[in-house]
Amino acid sequence: MNKLYVVGIGPGEYEQMTVRAINALKGSDTIIGYTVYVDLVKEHFPGKEFMTTPMKKEVDRCVMAFQEAMKGKTVSMICSGDAGVYGMSGLMYEVGKDYPQVELEIIPGVTAATGGAAVLGAPLIHDFCLISLSDLLTPWEKIESRLLHASEADFVICLYNPSSKKRHDYLMKACDLMMRYKKEDTVCGIVGNIGREGENMKIMTLKELRNTSVDMFTTVFVGNSQTKEINGKMVTPRGYRDV
Amino acid sequence: MNKLYVVGIGPGEYEQMTVRAINALKGSDTIIGYTVYVDLVKEHFPGKEFMTTPMKKEVDRCVMAFQEAMKGKTVSMICSGDAGVYGMSGLMYEVGKDYPQVELEIIPGVTAATGGAAVLGAPLIHDFCLISLSDLLTPWEKIESRLLHASEADFVICLYNPSSKKRHDYLMKACDLMMRYKKEDTVCGIVGNIGREGENMKIMTLKELRNTSVDMFTTVFVGNSQTKEINGKMVTPRGYRDV
Repeated sequence: MNKLYVVGIGPGEYEQMTVRAINALKGSDTIIGYTVYVDLVKEHFPGKEFMTTPMKKEVDRCVMAFQEAMKGKTVSMICSGDAGVYGMSGLMYEVGKDYPQVELEIIPGVTAATGGAAVLGAPLIHDFCLISLSDLLTPWEKIESRLLHASEADFVICLYNPSSKKRHDYLMKACDLMMRYKKEDTVCGIVGNIGREGENMKIMTLKELRNTSVDMFTTVFVGNSQTKEINGKMVTPRGYRDV
Repeated sequence: MNKLYVVGIGPGEYEQMTVRAINALKGSDTIIGYTVYVDLVKEHFPGKEFMTTPMKKEVDRCVMAFQEAMKGKTVSMICSGDAGVYGMSGLMYEVGKDYPQVELEIIPGVTAATGGAAVLGAPLIHDFCLISLSDLLTPWEKIESRLLHASEADFVICLYNPSSKKRHDYLMKACDLMMRYKKEDTVCGIVGNIGREGENMKIMTLKELRNTSVDMFTTVFVGNSQTKEINGKMVTPRGYRDV
């Protein structure tokens, strides 16, 4: 059977890839991905064939991967972070219905939530939600409902895709929704360019976050009612100390 | 400054560690952890000093790590999965308040949610919540509220610690709560021993999950209203196909 790997390469730097991901790429003839991610890994895998498609051409990219695998090549489709968190592995199974001869293997990686959490301290130690603010593929009403329910239930919330050119005020809208249940001084954090050049982080209150501009390379963390700042780090306790 | 790494070693097998995690362990004099996790990595890091504490001795383990670092050693505290997801990094910051001379560095890893998702297919492609069913450190009322809100908002839900000797009926209780909002035939999946010997997975409906016994090495995935089964895999669509 032809083998097609869907590989989460982690936040960006080579050191954050797993051994399993590296071995899959080393064992592949062809590595396919969004241009930016291919550029991140290229230098570490000399001699490979690289193929790219631009953003928003996700279906084309998947079809390309299956077609290359059908030629008898071992192929890796790469995604940043984890292939299964807002990544390509779901679409690969859908497109794969037309290519039953190709066996998919999903290789997990470090996603922005856990990669960013490590930069901020320990914000995700207890129950948390991931919510994407992109309404390109999800109705805004559904995003709104998730923000409200997650806030009411006191989850730590990690926001993916908090901003874009067309959605410059979405983080502000999201903060206003979360503040219906979360206090203004809830400890929050933002991390930019996780695991890449220019990595940066900042801790602030939810009220301050509301008035902060972030770009699309930023991941946002909103604490629960127990999250605190310890020596400049964002920490959600699990409770061991009280036991 | 003395260096203390808190390292997520991933689900278990060496291949699922990141290069960064491996380098941290290679560069350490002493590796500290829960006995089971130390046994998982021991053979790959010969010549290191290994120290263990049993389960439920988390604070002691953290203090031990800081005390070893204070002796001038480079120390790694290891956690399974990611150090920041129900892991030790939060407690390390709390205990670390007493050891300002020691610099903490958190090294993220593949957590059971994304590791297990890769085994099941692609269940976490859209917004999801992680909820631990352990009420050792969290009041059950809070867990219940989170299960209900997450279900009402149609999140995919990933359950950690779904069972233990004392909590053999907790998964059943959780399923009953989720079924107030999620349909009985919601696609669910369980994965046991992720990335370890005996790895196994099964896909079923939420109603079937309710009547399924799982052990403490199992991670449970409950789909959203759009999650489906494709060729024996659990897949949550993101919507590209409809664009």
